[in-house]
Amino acid sequence: MTNRPATPVLDRVRVPADMKSLSDRELRQLADELRSETISAVSETGGHLGAGLGVVELTVAIHAVFETPRDKLIWDVSHQCYPHKILTGRRDRIRTLRMEGGLSGFTKRSESPYDPFGAAHSSTSISAALGFAAARDLGGDPGDAIAVIGDGSMSAGMAFEAMNNAGHLKKRLFVILNDNEMSIAPPVGALSSYLTKLYADGPFDELKAVAKGAASLLPPPLREGALRAKEMLKGMAVGGTMFEQLGFSYIGPVDGHDLDQLLHVLRAAKTRATGPMLIHVITKKGKGYAPAEAARDKGHATGKFDVLTGKQAKAISNAPSYTKVFAQSLIQEAETDEKIVAITAAMPDGTGLNLFAERFPKRCFDVGIAEQHAVTFAAGLAAGGMKPFCALYSTFLQRGYDQVVHDVAIQRLPVRFPIDRAGLVGADGATHAGSFDVAFMANLPGMVVMAAADEAELKHMVATAVAWEEGPIAFRFPRGDGVGVEMPAKGQLLEIGKGRIITEGSRVALLSFGTRLAEVQKAAEALAQKGIMATVADARFAKPLDHDLILQLAHHHEALITIEEGAIGGFGSHVAQLLADEAVFDRGLKYRSMVLPDIFIDQASPEAMYRIAGMDAPQIEAKVLETLGIASLTKRA
Amino acid sequence: MTNRPATPVLDRVRVPADMKSLSDRELRQLADELRSETISAVSETGGHLGAGLGVVELTVAIHAVFETPRDKLIWDVSHQCYPHKILTGRRDRIRTLRMEGGLSGFTKRSESPYDPFGAAHSSTSISAALGFAAARDLGGDPGDAIAVIGDGSMSAGMAFEAMNNAGHLKKRLFVILNDNEMSIAPPVGALSSYLTKLYADGPFDELKAVAKGAASLLPPPLREGALRAKEMLKGMAVGGTMFEQLGFSYIGPVDGHDLDQLLHVLRAAKTRATGPMLIHVITKKGKGYAPAEAARDKGHATGKFDVLTGKQAKAISNAPSYTKVFAQSLIQEAETDEKIVAITAAMPDGTGLNLFAERFPKRCFDVGIAEQHAVTFAAGLAAGGMKPFCALYSTFLQRGYDQVVHDVAIQRLPVRFPIDRAGLVGADGATHAGSFDVAFMANLPGMVVMAAADEAELKHMVATAVAWEEGPIAFRFPRGDGVGVEMPAKGQLLEIGKGRIITEGSRVALLSFGTRLAEVQKAAEALAQKGIMATVADARFAKPLDHDLILQLAHHHEALITIEEGAIGGFGSHVAQLLADEAVFDRGLKYRSMVLPDIFIDQASPEAMYRIAGMDAPQIEAKVLETLGIASLTKRA
Repeated sequence: MTNRPATPVLDRVRVPADMKSLSDRELRQLADELRSETISAVSETGGHLGAGLGVVELTVAIHAVFETPRDKLIWDVSHQCYPHKILTGRRDRIRTLRMEGGLSGFTKRSESPYDPFGAAHSSTSISAALGFAAARDLGGDPGDAIAVIGDGSMSAGMAFEAMNNAGHLKKRLFVILNDNEMSIAPPVGALSSYLTKLYADGPFDELKAVAKGAASLLPPPLREGALRAKEMLKGMAVGGTMFEQLGFSYIGPVDGHDLDQLLHVLRAAKTRATGPMLIHVITKKGKGYAPAEAARDKGHATGKFDVLTGKQAKAISNAPSYTKVFAQSLIQEAETDEKIVAITAAMPDGTGLNLFAERFPKRCFDVGIAEQHAVTFAAGLAAGGMKPFCALYSTFLQRGYDQVVHDVAIQRLPVRFPIDRAGLVGADGATHAGSFDVAFMANLPGMVVMAAADEAELKHMVATAVAWEEGPIAFRFPRGDGVGVEMPAKGQLLEIGKGRIITEGSRVALLSFGTRLAEVQKAAEALAQKGIMATVADARFAKPLDHDLILQLAHHHEALITIEEGAIGGFGSHVAQLLADEAVFDRGLKYRSMVLPDIFIDQASPEAMYRIAGMDAPQIEAKVLETLGIASLTKRA
Repeated sequence: MTNRPATPVLDRVRVPADMKSLSDRELRQLADELRSETISAVSETGGHLGAGLGVVELTVAIHAVFETPRDKLIWDVSHQCYPHKILTGRRDRIRTLRMEGGLSGFTKRSESPYDPFGAAHSSTSISAALGFAAARDLGGDPGDAIAVIGDGSMSAGMAFEAMNNAGHLKKRLFVILNDNEMSIAPPVGALSSYLTKLYADGPFDELKAVAKGAASLLPPPLREGALRAKEMLKGMAVGGTMFEQLGFSYIGPVDGHDLDQLLHVLRAAKTRATGPMLIHVITKKGKGYAPAEAARDKGHATGKFDVLTGKQAKAISNAPSYTKVFAQSLIQEAETDEKIVAITAAMPDGTGLNLFAERFPKRCFDVGIAEQHAVTFAAGLAAGGMKPFCALYSTFLQRGYDQVVHDVAIQRLPVRFPIDRAGLVGADGATHAGSFDVAFMANLPGMVVMAAADEAELKHMVATAVAWEEGPIAFRFPRGDGVGVEMPAKGQLLEIGKGRIITEGSRVALLSFGTRLAEVQKAAEALAQKGIMATVADARFAKPLDHDLILQLAHHHEALITIEEGAIGGFGSHVAQLLADEAVFDRGLKYRSMVLPDIFIDQASPEAMYRIAGMDAPQIEAKVLETLGIASLTKRA
């Protein structure tokens, strides 16, 4: 507690209702204290710092003006929600952020009534807010709906779809565009240039007075209020027409760190709006904390740090991260193959493609938060003769699924899909888990699906994907560091559809797909201590399956157990289908498929999450013993 | 052949290169003949008529001005491609459209080099064209890239993502906006109103002369050509700023049925463009064929018809379509439950929700071609206390997959997903097949997944979905007519996770999920003739599975065979996982899972497609015999 800031006003606010008695001057102090408390908390927990600091004043203003939780406040992506959590009854747990059993790093319906709609992926907030508005007008939950969305999130097609629909339905609805010119990476689309122009053309500071004046001078009539407010406030706006063309009233740009201006504008908007209204707020990511403001990513995501210096405590690892191995392997291949190009959807750092872009700036495309476009753009590049690597996280590939089916798989175009963050990912929790890709990719005709068992395998898979021209190919790898195996100088071509035996044993065969292999080997060692010599194999491919290997394993062992870092429907299901088709079950086989359990697992360390999932070494060992009827006889045939 | 129109100019054009020698006057005649030929062909085959008739002049103009196939012409959705097919070497097969072994009703890479990128789902063309343009600039295939996209398709988020990226990359690229104010249904978004204003404000006819003049008067300089052309042509434009804000040069609106105007504008654009250019063309769906122009859907999709009268030959059915049963059941439920609302993504007729909208106009939301938004909007409605039915085709639900995971399943919001066109769909072919939904829905924690075995079951499932409030629930049903069972007066609540035995038998159990049940019953009858009395069961649920039923079937039969209208990873995979977990395979069971094969099946009748898939009654019977080792001993244990 020694380093905690003094927060006399914040101490009086447990929930937003407590703010109603505060003067505007006290609200300003509340904002300052909220900023200090946020920095202090994140210094202890790590997490998303910059985004929250950018919306401190906005958070205070919204809760001061609107009536949450009756009014529905929806944070897009919601990694900026820490100040919101502090103000909405969760301050006592804010130092458990992103920890097992602690507060989620995102908004979450099950956590608080002040989180009416959870998020973590981007660009969903306007759709959800419009849903609340439509429900309200049909007799559902009362109250206003307010979406707060960043400029990066606004570039995603989904946000456009929602704006287009909202402009058509004309329901009272507030969209607050939190324009900080920065999603995770600097934004790259034409929309971003357009937004910049909206406030770059006009002298921003001089608008303040106008804003206050215009808001307080609004005329009373209600029915035509919105229109007139729009017309009057237009004086503030340098542009804004794109939103108006979509049927929104536009107010802005507003200084997102000037609480008085925010309060005035929000009060006026709340009083006058009859239809959809876009309030364009300019903020600075990392605002008010020098180390964050100075960082290239504006303190986007941080580990624990020292508040005074901003210095982060770094974990030491002897192995490179999978992400880095992927990037370096791809760069190495691209040195000699100029057809290789790379695509990322606003995640250059997260996918390692920032390194690729430094080396080959013209051959790397950051398309913004736009996975649908990313996939089909890659398909076009492939059809045009290139070798595109469309690098997405597993969970975000879900956004481009139809494009994978319709534009890539059906046309058998050789798009390469490096799938990062496959499996359970830790502190980001269930929304970021890469649980479903094996299932939804491997059931597509013509798709090749690989998973790397370690970082050397990943390097081979990059080389294999470069060489594979017959159709699409995907390879998945997890978040975090490799296992420390020796790295080959060059990636080797893997034979498509062939796995490998790691250790020969008898009685039970453990067939791993992906990086559970290390745990499988640990389990095998423990079993060896008990006199059970397990065969361990690495499938490498979920599709095409290594028929020979699998049938051999089935033939020569009493039990065959598959392990994968994915949900049902993936690798194990394909193996079961093969075994059924080949009549292996007819004569009896102790077959088990270890997959992620049928629950969404909350944030914890990846190790803890896999323990919850029942997939660490002791649990694999237990599964073997149980299957062989050694630990338990209850299920024996 | 008697009714075929005389087409002297068209007869001289086998491929677009043959058009280069034609005068503009001959091109005009070519367009007229092309229109007649299109009408004549579709009268014999049925198919998408209105869309093709709307782009006859545009098709001629593009092929006359550009150098296809070196230049890449990409038709969005591509149901408007029949005139294009006639001009690109496929006239001799145009009367096999959408038939088994015939031409696809869509563009298809494997069919012709003039189809550089296939389509069938909407809004992919700009992404693909940008991919070709980027590949070209990196040393890939040379040539221009031209996307032709309708105003309805333009409202999808994916098109916006592509425009945003294209405006940023600034590559030479042509996007032709084919604005006919009509996708399948009249468009509904704010963008549509905006587009209408673009040409409604200005006197359209008076622009013609300006267009011609401006194009021919363009000054020579190349580097600044595009900019100057834009500035000059701006006189024509009433607005266009939204596209300019996104970094495009805008030309338009152009009369899409005035070939001279089109030729002038395209020639000028081709000569001058250095960056992305949007050419706004106004067309009439169904143009030049009175019965199509007069139809409410502008002749969107038609059966075979009489050219003179436009009268369609209708197939007679005694059973209602599944789509209609769904709609009527939902209306019946909604009469007494005002919380029920319905969402469609630009498919009110296809999903039957046009009927719902007539009865409950305020409770039906057509969000446009915007599946991502549709799903999350539905999630917002559910969070706001309503009972949303988000009705999509299986193949289009793929577009909203991440939203199903992230916004619905993780939050356990009770969104109801009626999944129409599940399984193989016939003439629309592989791109419209609903093959993957069972797999990608049933592996989501908390999701309930049902399939209707017949139209009475569908009615029960609608009622069950209305009542289920604990989380999301999906029910799938196929294209086409029911089997003619007696319809209950009211849908009954099905017990969640419980299947039903249809007939008791021995030795082999056939466990069906969905409408293959009729074929399964036929197979069982044929087997009975051979003395094999099969047990037939309808699973109803892929999730949660009926554990008791399945384990009983496994226990009391030598063989258990599942049948479903979906790909691997779905129902059969869940059954296999259960049987493995319960150690059923340990002691031996002849288990088989009949799923769609690992190929994309081309268009044919649904019956023929299921025959190709190996899933009709004789093939089910054969599978039983083979599994029991009666027909073949090769795989017997």
